[in-house]
Amino acid sequence: MTEEKRQVSAEDSLIARYFKPLATDPGAFGLIDDAAILSSSGEDIVVTTDAVVEGVHYLATDPPDTIARKALRVNLSDLAAKGGSPAGFVLTLALRSKQDAWLRPFADALGDDARAFACPLLGGDTVSTPGPQMISITAFGRVPKGRMVGRTGAKPGDLVFVTGTIGDAALGLDALTGGAAAAALTDPAARDYLIDRYRVPRPRNALAGIVREHASAAMDVSDGLAGDLAKLCAASGVSAVINAHHVPVSAAAAIAVSAVGLEKLVSGGDDYEILCAVPEQRSAAFSRQAEQAGVEVTMIGTVIAGQGTPQWVDAQGEEVTLGRLSYSHF
Amino acid sequence: MTEEKRQVSAEDSLIARYFKPLATDPGAFGLIDDAAILSSSGEDIVVTTDAVVEGVHYLATDPPDTIARKALRVNLSDLAAKGGSPAGFVLTLALRSKQDAWLRPFADALGDDARAFACPLLGGDTVSTPGPQMISITAFGRVPKGRMVGRTGAKPGDLVFVTGTIGDAALGLDALTGGAAAAALTDPAARDYLIDRYRVPRPRNALAGIVREHASAAMDVSDGLAGDLAKLCAASGVSAVINAHHVPVSAAAAIAVSAVGLEKLVSGGDDYEILCAVPEQRSAAFSRQAEQAGVEVTMIGTVIAGQGTPQWVDAQGEEVTLGRLSYSHF
Repeated sequence: MTEEKRQVSAEDSLIARYFKPLATDPGAFGLIDDAAILSSSGEDIVVTTDAVVEGVHYLATDPPDTIARKALRVNLSDLAAKGGSPAGFVLTLALRSKQDAWLRPFADALGDDARAFACPLLGGDTVSTPGPQMISITAFGRVPKGRMVGRTGAKPGDLVFVTGTIGDAALGLDALTGGAAAAALTDPAARDYLIDRYRVPRPRNALAGIVREHASAAMDVSDGLAGDLAKLCAASGVSAVINAHHVPVSAAAAIAVSAVGLEKLVSGGDDYEILCAVPEQRSAAFSRQAEQAGVEVTMIGTVIAGQGTPQWVDAQGEEVTLGRLSYSHF
Repeated sequence: MTEEKRQVSAEDSLIARYFKPLATDPGAFGLIDDAAILSSSGEDIVVTTDAVVEGVHYLATDPPDTIARKALRVNLSDLAAKGGSPAGFVLTLALRSKQDAWLRPFADALGDDARAFACPLLGGDTVSTPGPQMISITAFGRVPKGRMVGRTGAKPGDLVFVTGTIGDAALGLDALTGGAAAAALTDPAARDYLIDRYRVPRPRNALAGIVREHASAAMDVSDGLAGDLAKLCAASGVSAVINAHHVPVSAAAAIAVSAVGLEKLVSGGDDYEILCAVPEQRSAAFSRQAEQAGVEVTMIGTVIAGQGTPQWVDAQGEEVTLGRLSYSHF
């Protein structure tokens, strides 16, 4: 057989062209093997997996570079909330087409983020699908043995903190899809800010070590603050009282909130902020170290004993009723 | 807020109902967390990821229990070829519907295989898709530090071995889809055997330690023996001479091979057998230990110096020309 007849599969050439440059870790073997090596020296490996589907988690019209960043960052956000340092990721890409105009910016942005977050591509699989495109990522982090921050450790008296601002992404999606927020957002800069927050999460990996040192329980907020807090409380066997007026809101979101209501912000998806419970005696150190790390944290309430859904109260101490807690993709 | 208004998302209840019973490893935290822990004691973690897509890697009419087994086993096959002991897996399930009639046998079969191969479910993500269903699995194995069997170590003089039989799955798919093999397979038992080989791979995990001890290079055969051998040789910077008549063929495949030709068998996908190069002085021990482990291995050729595509020769030493080497999903 001649060399000319040697067939390199389309998948192999696609991987070599777009993704081999991202496989900078020696354990990735330049993507020529079916498997990668994650070396360890006795620490725990944190494993998380999250997929984004076209039309469900991102819009078909979203720029491919933002889709790449979102796919990786939703996983980085999980690692951050668990107190893990990024160690690498594997990628499954279900593609309908393999046009350079989509793949080039996708791969370049993925590579930029892999470098910026020190989370190299270790391997992957590329498959064709006649349906919506999908990017599934499994990401790995490292924590000292036994030190992953779980959901089950929150105790009555702990203070409830959240990073960044809440509801921006839900409003951004609303603006993109012509919802109630769209009409309220007449300021183009505010609109663009919220849309960017929907498309490109800001995972709080700078806070990982601080969460590990101080938090009794933590998770990232991906399906709405109210619902995710309820999950954390249920896992810990506690409840909480949340001061609704303390929930951090961006200036852009503040413009829209009168039109859409608070519920939209605290039950909307895609925040990718960290929610955590911190024992009161550690809260000052937690806040100070977070500030030093450049991550805004806000105390929004208190963990209490009990099994009920967390209570939300306003500045007058009156209960705020939330009709829905979470965004569900189903 | 009353308990009645507490919303458990459809995804959470689906996971609890079908997949929590599979999460038997303590590192899975009963699937209540966003992340899992893979503990380590300084060994290397082998990571592999492979997805199966409805209509591409399996047929929409395939029974759900076989789809589950295939999704996990294609990954177990990679671990086996790399010399790794299974340590666990994470699952991303992109579902169009979530009917119990599909999910119950799927989850039960996945649980059976997870137990049988000692590869527990550690975590996952369930997303909805309007398109074809897809199951993406990332599986983990353990090898002593630095001992993963790669693709790059084959040396001239090594003998080329393959496990099991080759081409059964390609013929099974052909029989299911009314191809040339379908007409030749008048024996229902032979037809059923080949279809089962397509639907349910037999990963050779019993051979993992033996491959690690003796093989200089190895990979699993998933895209056709001829093409995968060419990849292994290219990665190692060598070539090979393969005796086409030594390629192990099942009795059922032998019935069909006259109708479809050898090329169909050695370029068809879905074998999930192990292809490896073994230094000649180790080959007797390799074969003996494989037999003791209950895994059939066949010597099919020799690694030679050179950069060319492996040569295939018949019993008379004449070159066999293969028009295509691999099955490509693209």
